[in-house]
Amino acid sequence: MKNTFGNSVSLTLFGESHGNAIGCVLDGMAPGVAVDEAFIAAQMSRRKGIASVSTPRKEGDEVRIVSGVFQGKTTGTPICMMIENTTQRSNDYERTRFLARPGHADYTAQCKYGGYQDYRGGGHFSGRITAPLVAAGAIALTALKSKGISVGTHIAKCAGVKDRDFSSYGDDIRALSEKDMPVLSDEAYEQMLTAIKAARDEGDSVGGVLTTAVVGIPAGVGEPWFDTVESMLAHGLFSIPAVKGVEFGMGFAMSELRGSRANDPLIMEQGKVMTASNHNGGINGGITNGMPIVFSTCIKPTPSIFKPQQTVDFSKMENAEIRIKGRHDPAIIHRAAVVVDSITALTLCDLLAQHFGTDYLRG
Amino acid sequence: MKNTFGNSVSLTLFGESHGNAIGCVLDGMAPGVAVDEAFIAAQMSRRKGIASVSTPRKEGDEVRIVSGVFQGKTTGTPICMMIENTTQRSNDYERTRFLARPGHADYTAQCKYGGYQDYRGGGHFSGRITAPLVAAGAIALTALKSKGISVGTHIAKCAGVKDRDFSSYGDDIRALSEKDMPVLSDEAYEQMLTAIKAARDEGDSVGGVLTTAVVGIPAGVGEPWFDTVESMLAHGLFSIPAVKGVEFGMGFAMSELRGSRANDPLIMEQGKVMTASNHNGGINGGITNGMPIVFSTCIKPTPSIFKPQQTVDFSKMENAEIRIKGRHDPAIIHRAAVVVDSITALTLCDLLAQHFGTDYLRG
Amino acid sequence: MKNTFGNSVSLTLFGESHGNAIGCVLDGMAPGVAVDEAFIAAQMSRRKGIASVSTPRKEGDEVRIVSGVFQGKTTGTPICMMIENTTQRSNDYERTRFLARPGHADYTAQCKYGGYQDYRGGGHFSGRITAPLVAAGAIALTALKSKGISVGTHIAKCAGVKDRDFSSYGDDIRALSEKDMPVLSDEAYEQMLTAIKAARDEGDSVGGVLTTAVVGIPAGVGEPWFDTVESMLAHGLFSIPAVKGVEFGMGFAMSELRGSRANDPLIMEQGKVMTASNHNGGINGGITNGMPIVFSTCIKPTPSIFKPQQTVDFSKMENAEIRIKGRHDPAIIHRAAVVVDSITALTLCDLLAQHFGTDYLRG
Amino acid sequence: MKNTFGNSVSLTLFGESHGNAIGCVLDGMAPGVAVDEAFIAAQMSRRKGIASVSTPRKEGDEVRIVSGVFQGKTTGTPICMMIENTTQRSNDYERTRFLARPGHADYTAQCKYGGYQDYRGGGHFSGRITAPLVAAGAIALTALKSKGISVGTHIAKCAGVKDRDFSSYGDDIRALSEKDMPVLSDEAYEQMLTAIKAARDEGDSVGGVLTTAVVGIPAGVGEPWFDTVESMLAHGLFSIPAVKGVEFGMGFAMSELRGSRANDPLIMEQGKVMTASNHNGGINGGITNGMPIVFSTCIKPTPSIFKPQQTVDFSKMENAEIRIKGRHDPAIIHRAAVVVDSITALTLCDLLAQHFGTDYLRG
Repeated sequence: MKNTFGNSVSLTLFGESHGNAIGCVLDGMAPGVAVDEAFIAAQMSRRKGIASVSTPRKEGDEVRIVSGVFQGKTTGTPICMMIENTTQRSNDYERTRFLARPGHADYTAQCKYGGYQDYRGGGHFSGRITAPLVAAGAIALTALKSKGISVGTHIAKCAGVKDRDFSSYGDDIRALSEKDMPVLSDEAYEQMLTAIKAARDEGDSVGGVLTTAVVGIPAGVGEPWFDTVESMLAHGLFSIPAVKGVEFGMGFAMSELRGSRANDPLIMEQGKVMTASNHNGGINGGITNGMPIVFSTCIKPTPSIFKPQQTVDFSKMENAEIRIKGRHDPAIIHRAAVVVDSITALTLCDLLAQHFGTDYLRG
Repeated sequence: MKNTFGNSVSLTLFGESHGNAIGCVLDGMAPGVAVDEAFIAAQMSRRKGIASVSTPRKEGDEVRIVSGVFQGKTTGTPICMMIENTTQRSNDYERTRFLARPGHADYTAQCKYGGYQDYRGGGHFSGRITAPLVAAGAIALTALKSKGISVGTHIAKCAGVKDRDFSSYGDDIRALSEKDMPVLSDEAYEQMLTAIKAARDEGDSVGGVLTTAVVGIPAGVGEPWFDTVESMLAHGLFSIPAVKGVEFGMGFAMSELRGSRANDPLIMEQGKVMTASNHNGGINGGITNGMPIVFSTCIKPTPSIFKPQQTVDFSKMENAEIRIKGRHDPAIIHRAAVVVDSITALTLCDLLAQHFGTDYLRG
Repeated sequence: MKNTFGNSVSLTLFGESHGNAIGCVLDGMAPGVAVDEAFIAAQMSRRKGIASVSTPRKEGDEVRIVSGVFQGKTTGTPICMMIENTTQRSNDYERTRFLARPGHADYTAQCKYGGYQDYRGGGHFSGRITAPLVAAGAIALTALKSKGISVGTHIAKCAGVKDRDFSSYGDDIRALSEKDMPVLSDEAYEQMLTAIKAARDEGDSVGGVLTTAVVGIPAGVGEPWFDTVESMLAHGLFSIPAVKGVEFGMGFAMSELRGSRANDPLIMEQGKVMTASNHNGGINGGITNGMPIVFSTCIKPTPSIFKPQQTVDFSKMENAEIRIKGRHDPAIIHRAAVVVDSITALTLCDLLAQHFGTDYLRG
Repeated sequence: MKNTFGNSVSLTLFGESHGNAIGCVLDGMAPGVAVDEAFIAAQMSRRKGIASVSTPRKEGDEVRIVSGVFQGKTTGTPICMMIENTTQRSNDYERTRFLARPGHADYTAQCKYGGYQDYRGGGHFSGRITAPLVAAGAIALTALKSKGISVGTHIAKCAGVKDRDFSSYGDDIRALSEKDMPVLSDEAYEQMLTAIKAARDEGDSVGGVLTTAVVGIPAGVGEPWFDTVESMLAHGLFSIPAVKGVEFGMGFAMSELRGSRANDPLIMEQGKVMTASNHNGGINGGITNGMPIVFSTCIKPTPSIFKPQQTVDFSKMENAEIRIKGRHDPAIIHRAAVVVDSITALTLCDLLAQHFGTDYLRG
């Protein structure tokens, strides 16, 4: 389905970085979900990143709700949201039009679209297209919250600096929602900023790993084959630009353990089935077991760097050097966290609506 | 779509471990693709694993082609393949019917299906359901081969033992197809067998990491948002039981690098655009760039172990101990490799058919 | 999705008329639905038609439930059902292999599949493929019944003979389920048989119109755009071979009325919103209004006739004459009625599961 | 998929009659298709109908292309188009908010959305939502034209007046594209206008039947089961408001014939396989045979009439009378013709892209 994701609750993205506007259509959301425009704006602001390590952006990134919301609530019909593109400086891109930026989609776009693509600023491949995704995610997060489900992501690792692990999921998720950069430990926060700035000063960039937790999800959601919770989440996560790895629970480290250590023992606790550990990240056989869903996402270093790079000029099919100019962030991981929260929330809304029906999220 | 995966080329799986039969429907495959029953049988045999570290299985796992193949070639209509279940010992499971095996889907199946699930041997969640997936994958691999595309997977790591990396993809993939256990280095092969047997002797199990390479795929395949090549492959891979992580190219290790190291420089080579390194695993912006697609998949240790484990009896909702009996492998990673090849081939057939039309794979 | 229909509840068909076997996979059906094998057999028998105007068939059409049913109830996982092909006389078809039978798909199959299609007896296009559809429909009808929803179809018109209209939907649907040929009026029944036999005696065939009613469906089901109840039902109905028209409520006759006559006035009756007439066939804006869903389906005359016909030999690309031999029915409309009931039931299960969740039909 | 239609080429509609704006996202269209804004405007104008029998509308219905078009051509990425809502008079609807208009979706919307729907002017159910569908259809029609495929619809019957049948498809389609109301015979045109005005003068409305022809479509397109050409077209057509019937070729009249008359003999003509008649409307076994696709669509009389009607007030659940005010057309059939052309073109683009790949329509 190309630019659409989800079955019962689906999101379609449209727009190019330097076109008229970007936006999305969120379809299948239950009627009666509160649409909190202040929360949408707050999430948009989190996506912009913090001033000290992000490039100053003048766009208001003001979200216009075009349809599907009436008297402050979802109607149940498609929700279109739009963000006008106002301050593009397209001329930056004419100069390098045929120079494929390494790590970007310039060359693959040329192969796929045969020269018809809007090449300015990454066009439809731009990270900017995550803005409407975050707007849609804000509605999804609100819908989940009404059912007692919360989602939070922290920067587990960035530029060689590690954050502390989640300790109490509920408290940590709440704390993260109030931070300008989602790092649990204040010390790690400072160290990360320093490391990011060091990369920036060298015209370079850094990546990292995000860890996400979801609490409150009921057991029994997901499908055994193909539409497993892991499959659906990974499908969404891997379409976020710069994501190169996804792992659930202990993930790759689990391959080092023996089964007797890796298996999560089941226990009764306060009349409820729990697991003593959560190495499987809340999912068995593709289906939620009622424990927190936990996963990590690897974000590669921002490909736009200021150092000169070797590339090809595909108009002449010859080797060339590229020097990227313009506004580019030395790190996007802190901005990607809210995108991960958003796609996670949308995916879970879809799985819940499939299982419990389209009105379940009405609250 | 639950138990169906793929858009233009799709696979539906059915069956339970101890039911009458298991099987699949492969739909959308081009007409005129050769169906090589000997190759299907060889792949089925690879899925069974090698005698020294796999439990002896009496099932013939004979694949019956029910439809969609005529005079040795695909017709273009749905291909149903079936494997009869012959030697189940269902009584093994009556004893532990209400004891959720840790690391398995017993408890989540109960939550999802409310007691109506076939609980014998994992039912529809059983790894046995990968058998028809491998049969379908064999047809997909043949179709790809006719277009010069080949797929191979080796055990990069198992029980703490590392294999050597891919050196020459083409040669290595060919070599892997002739091995009984897909390890590139003979020394690593011996060490892995020893380590697996050690775990077995303690009634325990091991996991590992598989690395897969695809060569010959044309540039320009995949979609920018949601149906990226990474999203589609991860969707398929995460529905294989025991997979807990997927990473493309350098994957998680890429988060340690700076952009200037992580980006793959583009170069002209013999009139063709190539990349000097392949940290991105052949995919930029979700779309193939013509370089080999490379990814790794984490396989958790087999959850069925013979050591006693703590669990709950969900008929009484109380704590209990479970001692698993029956036939269980101390490692499944060598058997999972062919499953990974299969789902990879199916996913690529789907992406190619979407881009180039349903007849492209006719050869 | 080619040979798959439905979103939450989906059906995949496979098989060729003269292949090994034919069958289906029904996925997404709620767990816990009773599977009544006697009812399945009864529906299969209705699909075979009555002896006096149908060709004698030796196939047992015995439905083998391969998966997804355990201890007499659905498990919630894919239900595969198969019917072996036993008594095909494939040689009948060698003679006419390259002679496109008029009104059949022989020539279009050649265009689509380029010669790889199984040409014997219509292959995958054969009306025989409706047999597994009827088996799946039987489970869907049982699931609907447990929610108080019933479906019935009568032959409104055949070979120029008209049946009486539905009078009391509930009683008529019940009466139809006990008839060997679904005609409400005994007089019309006799006249139809006579007319069908007259056509048969001339080596010719007849068609007709089926009218279907569904009672008990709740209001509020369906979607405003694209997945309207009418769109979904028509999608399913038009894939039944020989269907050339579908109309809801008064259908085409509605185009003759003025709005003041065509609109259905709303009235309160016993505390419930009803409509005084039902010209819209229970659907407004694509969504059920709680009144019976009523629609008619046009079945063209069976294309297999014994009279000589003009055609082309597409191996030589020249004009030719074809004389069809073998077993062919002078009418299939009485056999199509149960196919219409089946696809209707499957479509409604899908729409209900989407709206109310996957467990709604558990009963 | 709710408000999305199509697989390889898909259309998503959004918006409410009296909301901020309405629009669509057209995804999967090939890159490099010319986007002719003048043609889009011309089609929008045809959708508005002719002054003498349509209500005067002040909306510019100006289509803003938001994304997916660059330098006058499609880029291959999602095309969002928007139309602002400017001159709504929402207060007209407050008065009748809880009075379900007969023949409309007011009551079913209430059942489905539980009071959260935007009730003004039909909200998301409004015929106004066909405006962006027509804009998308204009691009699809242009893409088809570049492959030699043309689509045209005439009013076969309206208010008891019959138009002449198609004689030469190519010429007639061309002629229709230049008329303000799509009637082939000038005499019928005048009579229809008179009949429509007569209904209007009585505060009433009329319906009719549209007949559509598609020429130039290659043979071999469509699927044997479920995604037949008939199923896909009917799916799209039945989601157009007011459509209550769809028939292909001779349609319902075919049920009156014997097989020997109904079957279309195949003949060689100028080295090409043709059929001597076209009773099947260009489709056999769900697949195009290369002859013109011909089908008819029944449009019920506009449900908005000025005569008083009986209904219920669903806020009080009691009987009531409704008198509809505002702007309402005595006929919409002439405006529906371009909507039918549009959904037909979109459906065929989807089927062609599935069969021949996403770049086929590049021209």
